[in-house]
Amino acid sequence: MSGADAAASGIEPFDAVDVIRRKRDGGAVADDALRWMVDAFTRGYVSDAQMAAFAMAVLLNGMTREEIRVMTDAMIASGERMSFARLGKRTVDKHSTGGVGDKITLPLAPLVASFGVAVPQLSGRGLGHTGGTLDKLEAIPGWRAALSNAEMFEQLQGVGAVICAAGSGLAPADKRLYALRDVTGTVEAIPLIASSIMSKKIAEGTDALVLDVKFGSGAFMQDIGRARELARTMVALGADSGVATTALLTDMNTPLGRAIGNANEVRESVEVLAGGGPADVVELTVALAREMLALAGRPDADVEAALADGRAMDAWRRMIAAQGGDPDAALPAPRETHVVRATADGIVDRMEALPFGIAAWRLGAGRARAEDAVVHAAGIDLHKKPGDAVRAGEPVFALSADDPARFARALDALEGAWSIGETAPASAPLVVERITA
Amino acid sequence: MSGADAAASGIEPFDAVDVIRRKRDGGAVADDALRWMVDAFTRGYVSDAQMAAFAMAVLLNGMTREEIRVMTDAMIASGERMSFARLGKRTVDKHSTGGVGDKITLPLAPLVASFGVAVPQLSGRGLGHTGGTLDKLEAIPGWRAALSNAEMFEQLQGVGAVICAAGSGLAPADKRLYALRDVTGTVEAIPLIASSIMSKKIAEGTDALVLDVKFGSGAFMQDIGRARELARTMVALGADSGVATTALLTDMNTPLGRAIGNANEVRESVEVLAGGGPADVVELTVALAREMLALAGRPDADVEAALADGRAMDAWRRMIAAQGGDPDAALPAPRETHVVRATADGIVDRMEALPFGIAAWRLGAGRARAEDAVVHAAGIDLHKKPGDAVRAGEPVFALSADDPARFARALDALEGAWSIGETAPASAPLVVERITA
Repeated sequence: MSGADAAASGIEPFDAVDVIRRKRDGGAVADDALRWMVDAFTRGYVSDAQMAAFAMAVLLNGMTREEIRVMTDAMIASGERMSFARLGKRTVDKHSTGGVGDKITLPLAPLVASFGVAVPQLSGRGLGHTGGTLDKLEAIPGWRAALSNAEMFEQLQGVGAVICAAGSGLAPADKRLYALRDVTGTVEAIPLIASSIMSKKIAEGTDALVLDVKFGSGAFMQDIGRARELARTMVALGADSGVATTALLTDMNTPLGRAIGNANEVRESVEVLAGGGPADVVELTVALAREMLALAGRPDADVEAALADGRAMDAWRRMIAAQGGDPDAALPAPRETHVVRATADGIVDRMEALPFGIAAWRLGAGRARAEDAVVHAAGIDLHKKPGDAVRAGEPVFALSADDPARFARALDALEGAWSIGETAPASAPLVVERITA
Repeated sequence: MSGADAAASGIEPFDAVDVIRRKRDGGAVADDALRWMVDAFTRGYVSDAQMAAFAMAVLLNGMTREEIRVMTDAMIASGERMSFARLGKRTVDKHSTGGVGDKITLPLAPLVASFGVAVPQLSGRGLGHTGGTLDKLEAIPGWRAALSNAEMFEQLQGVGAVICAAGSGLAPADKRLYALRDVTGTVEAIPLIASSIMSKKIAEGTDALVLDVKFGSGAFMQDIGRARELARTMVALGADSGVATTALLTDMNTPLGRAIGNANEVRESVEVLAGGGPADVVELTVALAREMLALAGRPDADVEAALADGRAMDAWRRMIAAQGGDPDAALPAPRETHVVRATADGIVDRMEALPFGIAAWRLGAGRARAEDAVVHAAGIDLHKKPGDAVRAGEPVFALSADDPARFARALDALEGAWSIGETAPASAPLVVERITA
């Protein structure tokens, strides 16, 4: 029986081809038809081919604000919905669209939790050149990403911060749709990116959410205009769905901090929690913490003080320990290191995030397939960053890997990716815009 | 292994996602990449979901003339290619985009063949409200649609006209792609319609082709602008592929002739071949025959004379007999008839093609699924056409079916589909435009 026949006979209330055509011809799909489309896709009644055609039509013709809300709601309805209402604390989460050297979640979650706010941070693993928060934390001996809902709840109650893997029960329709978009050239549809990210955050049950939407060469959205559109779409969607949402638009043209990898990013995060660390990592951590605390009703919280006086570090140690990790254990060290040195005196004037991300990936810090393992000690340490003076023969950065055979392909990626000149580059702000509902 | 990996490792020369993205972003796909896409889809390496996303991108972003040529060529390359070079006669084929009461192929093929031109008419079966030429001819006792290539060649040599089923060896990629477009809302993409139709005609090996591109309520393209675009696209594609092609843009707002069905359409075709028949059927048969004969180098052929003096009828009888049919056999008669009469005096001022096509379909003349059988005696006979005067109580049209239970749903379709007024409708030309390369 064809879809039209099933729809006509009343077995299915809608026909997938009608829904696809409506979007294809630039119209808005009615709420009940859109909900049905997502549900029928999850049930396998709407085929991958039909959903792929629909996704392409969405990519090219867009969706109204109401359609995006309904689409997101339908994805949430495909799975379980968590609630932290019994916690008795405000909950606030953060999401980054991903970048190179982006370890901000690690210092941020305990920092915010140190003010008595609950931070339920469901995170993912990396794929491609952007790292994953869980991969980084798994560099810590004993630490485990998988928690039951009860364990998560208990840790939020006690420690206040939890960073763990999202259970498969949250928005399963999103998982299926994302896998399909990945192979059909429809990843870049802003309404679908927004509903994918937000469906999991809303299903998770957070009261508030801060988004770090990145633009530039190392970001998912290279173009600031599209990053802004995505940020506005998600902020509106949060507002429409009862989750107070703020977004910061941040520059991802240069790697964040001096560490790109896993173990080295943990090390850098601990420096920040100890009151030190690279200025850009501190700046972004503080900016995001302020936004999160403002949404949690603590606009005057002295974030810098909590980094300086050890309160954030204390929350970090308890958070890691609660998930089986030893915060004092030595982190994995690389077997092989290759140092790249300056061939002339000058000032580092450029380091492109994307090739550095690709190089770290090739060194083993990232994975090409979801089932691959990462090498926790692999990655890149930047001894110099743009604006730093350097003398001929000084190390500019060092590559780390388990196998020296990996250096050649990493160095290929870095060809032309950085340069030394005579003047410092014009300084660009890291946080470019703040977007609220 | 993902597509990108297979492409990167050299197993596959291209990555489907790259090809989809190129079309999605409004670019033209390179010749070799497009050929690969069609070939890899036929091999099953490019998935239905990927091809559906690509088809939607083509529908919304279009294709260049060169892309359409390459796409068509790739579909031809997926199967066998016939040749009539050894015939020693010019070959000319005709294709109609389908309508209600469109039996023109039946008188047209023998008419043109009566001038010594070969007419290799590969035809299809009907689906939905538009009838299929093979279904109509199968109303003739003994007639068979399936011929081997050798039988087809022999009949073209001897009789000059053959109307038979296209073998499955012609453009198999098109068959697979069409089935996918049908369920993914991508049927209406003009580049894909053009390449679908033309790939089979070019693979068939005809020297020349005349297209009857219909517009209006009973046509595939309701809008004349889109019909014109399709006609121009196919005429250009014919020129680019070495098949001399002319198109006529014809009105399909009113059923063609007085018979809608199968056996009754054969009967009407025989009337035309006997020098009679409804004026519109004769007009369109003659117009298309002139175009076909002009392309075959016989621009001065006296088409009306061949209808009047029995030459066309003679070719018809030989054509039917060559395929096992008895041109003198009685055609199937309906078991049940329901006559609709005028309730007032006046002039028939409107008969909408689409509802009459749907009503005939519901009476059993058409099929909802490819595997269904049609009822050859089912259909509608129009006793009056727009412009005809009618007296209260006179028959306007008669429904025929094997089962009287079918009349109610057919009459539902006809609700509001025709009317009787006080004045004749303004006469609209049947052949509206002629499009050449």
